[in-house]
Amino acid sequence: MASRSDLLPVDNTSSEADTGVRRTVLPGGVRVVTEHVPGVRSAAVGVWVGVGSRDEQPSVAGAAHFLEHLLFKATPTRSALEIAELVDGIGGELNAFTGKEHTCFYAHVLDDDLPIAVDVVADVVLRGRCRSADVDVERQVVLEELAIRDDDPEDLLGDALLTALYGDHPVGRPIIGSLESIEAMTRNQLHSFHVRRYTPARMVVAVAGNVDHEHTVELVRRAFTGHLGASAAPAPHRRGDLRLRTAPTLSITDRDNEQAHLTLGIRTFGRHDPRRWPLSVLNAVIGGGLSSRLFQEVRERRGLAYSVYSGIDTFADTGAFSMYAGCQPENLGDVAAVVREVLADVAENGITDAECARAKGSLRGGLVLGLEDTGARMHRIGRSELSYGRHWSVTDTLERIATVTTEQVSEVAADLLHRPFAAAVVGPYRRPRDLPRAVRDIVA
Amino acid sequence: MASRSDLLPVDNTSSEADTGVRRTVLPGGVRVVTEHVPGVRSAAVGVWVGVGSRDEQPSVAGAAHFLEHLLFKATPTRSALEIAELVDGIGGELNAFTGKEHTCFYAHVLDDDLPIAVDVVADVVLRGRCRSADVDVERQVVLEELAIRDDDPEDLLGDALLTALYGDHPVGRPIIGSLESIEAMTRNQLHSFHVRRYTPARMVVAVAGNVDHEHTVELVRRAFTGHLGASAAPAPHRRGDLRLRTAPTLSITDRDNEQAHLTLGIRTFGRHDPRRWPLSVLNAVIGGGLSSRLFQEVRERRGLAYSVYSGIDTFADTGAFSMYAGCQPENLGDVAAVVREVLADVAENGITDAECARAKGSLRGGLVLGLEDTGARMHRIGRSELSYGRHWSVTDTLERIATVTTEQVSEVAADLLHRPFAAAVVGPYRRPRDLPRAVRDIVA
Repeated sequence: MASRSDLLPVDNTSSEADTGVRRTVLPGGVRVVTEHVPGVRSAAVGVWVGVGSRDEQPSVAGAAHFLEHLLFKATPTRSALEIAELVDGIGGELNAFTGKEHTCFYAHVLDDDLPIAVDVVADVVLRGRCRSADVDVERQVVLEELAIRDDDPEDLLGDALLTALYGDHPVGRPIIGSLESIEAMTRNQLHSFHVRRYTPARMVVAVAGNVDHEHTVELVRRAFTGHLGASAAPAPHRRGDLRLRTAPTLSITDRDNEQAHLTLGIRTFGRHDPRRWPLSVLNAVIGGGLSSRLFQEVRERRGLAYSVYSGIDTFADTGAFSMYAGCQPENLGDVAAVVREVLADVAENGITDAECARAKGSLRGGLVLGLEDTGARMHRIGRSELSYGRHWSVTDTLERIATVTTEQVSEVAADLLHRPFAAAVVGPYRRPRDLPRAVRDIVA
Repeated sequence: MASRSDLLPVDNTSSEADTGVRRTVLPGGVRVVTEHVPGVRSAAVGVWVGVGSRDEQPSVAGAAHFLEHLLFKATPTRSALEIAELVDGIGGELNAFTGKEHTCFYAHVLDDDLPIAVDVVADVVLRGRCRSADVDVERQVVLEELAIRDDDPEDLLGDALLTALYGDHPVGRPIIGSLESIEAMTRNQLHSFHVRRYTPARMVVAVAGNVDHEHTVELVRRAFTGHLGASAAPAPHRRGDLRLRTAPTLSITDRDNEQAHLTLGIRTFGRHDPRRWPLSVLNAVIGGGLSSRLFQEVRERRGLAYSVYSGIDTFADTGAFSMYAGCQPENLGDVAAVVREVLADVAENGITDAECARAKGSLRGGLVLGLEDTGARMHRIGRSELSYGRHWSVTDTLERIATVTTEQVSEVAADLLHRPFAAAVVGPYRRPRDLPRAVRDIVA
């Protein structure tokens, strides 16, 4: 699939037919995408940078996330306190998050305060400073965040499962980095990561809410002064070229908590593969809602867990489909056995027409309900621009969901659920042989 | 303050001037309050019952929450699976939560599906069955939820702090109950709690979104068939009559995690006290946002914690104002010392005009941004009806915030922050003498 933004001349404004999304490419390659949301009095502004933990060398694991923290500490014209006072004073929210493939800095404000939001978010992203003293203070904060991750079994499992699935491939490395890499990170490494990676051609400014496209573009142009130099084209969207030599493994983290936690999963396909639509339906059927097989079999029928669900991670060239359950250690063997039975049954017999219809209804409703929030709208268009270089209307997406058939879902299930599984466990276990047999057997 | 709903004749429809909220009282005393939200295609439906853990005898601690779970397991015409399939099929969300003073069952759906949402939520609340077999399965789920609470330091601390503040008063008891009370709970105790407490006069049906008042009332009338008998008036809102004989204490839970967690707090006043407005401003100044004193002193200047904030719990006749921080155990003494310095300074010197203005801006923006969500609107009107028997327009609330003065906030600070503190700690500590001195000294 060609990146549409590749095909656009710079400084061109286009309206993606029927999507409600308008796009302008400024000199330097920064893209501005906006969506007017009727009936709201707010605006969500995100600067999306197509850079994440996947782009790090192993020696600077966690640099993308550390930098995301650091940039808020000071710009040439504002201290961290001044930035905080400005945003708190207008009752706005200012934050950021780092992923494997992108980093997003965002603000959510009343519509009248859009100029402040664009200005302050762009200031942080473009001109956030990397000062040695700030690096040392923020290193402590990141180490605290690492400790929180280590104390949160679901977070820890999420990281452990991707490592178990992808080995030392960058997709398998935790976004936050490691104790060693965070402790060793230097000011110069972070500064260099910022200067080399945060180029305007890799940036998308996404704005949704009670906003006007031309006015927003003008605000971005002003905020990006000094960063609009050359007439570079936007960077093409990420494709990736996954090459893996390792097989999925079993990960065990010894924790003496009240609950044990289990996640298991398989490698799937990337976001450009059309099978992601049947996979979404499959996910809803297996562990997406109250009527899903896992919820009914594990919780409703047997009371074995409070929290049980499945989920999908999607990257440019690969993805992961995973199932999670938390339970008291004495139930872990039963939980693993029931989860495996559910998966084996779907792999063998597929899903029913009634399940397919219900799952599609669930995705449809969830999509529409989710998009009432301006923040969610901003996320949708920012991610879509960065990942695909194009946009789909809600109607298009609803139609795409509607066309999925029971057979397509059953086929995807038969393919995926026969692939080798990785598993990760957090609980009172030191070695594989401490685990119930049904858990050990997940990883062949 | 008189409860307005007391003054209304039954079966009366009224529109609260300028609030956008309409109310109808049906025979039996159930109140229907609706708010039309322009520009949305969804509806949020909540049945609020003015009954919570505060209404339990100690022997059935956790009954309100256990019952909330159990009612979803079956009604005379639907199994748990049928309820789940119905809601998943329309892409809706169905859930419930239990508080100390109320329980809410709710659904969030596309506007066309409002009739289904009203019908299924009312069915669960009014006709959910208490079957012995379901009690035993759901007991296991509640025990898993208890284990999750015990593994989540912030949840555990929240419960521990209220116990440290209120002793064995019902407000001090955890909503979920105890291992012993959950294990001992019988089908008859739960059934009796349902029959005696869940009376229509204690119920408010709150609906917000793309909805019409008369149509909604008709749907509720139909769903409440058989429960609209007598012409009872709505129950008056809860007043409480707090009498406490115990002093705040120090609570320690030994956990060998990466982080230690500290919360400290004081008893304040109930929701009918006008000082709750200056307290909201004080909370924003001390620990409400990025520019708050705690965030700046603990995280930005010193890097001692990732998560640090303050918060307010409000009940009919009392409340709690608390501060939280999580950090690695070697930093706990420093964190406690900095938090105490911040509080002592505000108690002594009050807040500045700039802080007051910024905090009011923050509350204003947060209120308006928060109310774009139909779920949040439903919560606002449901809680307001149950707690006050009346409603305020957003404009009224914004004006109320605007009138708060620096002096009022400083006065409330001087009063509250000199009261005796309770504290709760989760971390590698067994006895008070294992704690850093700055933590021990919080509780005089």
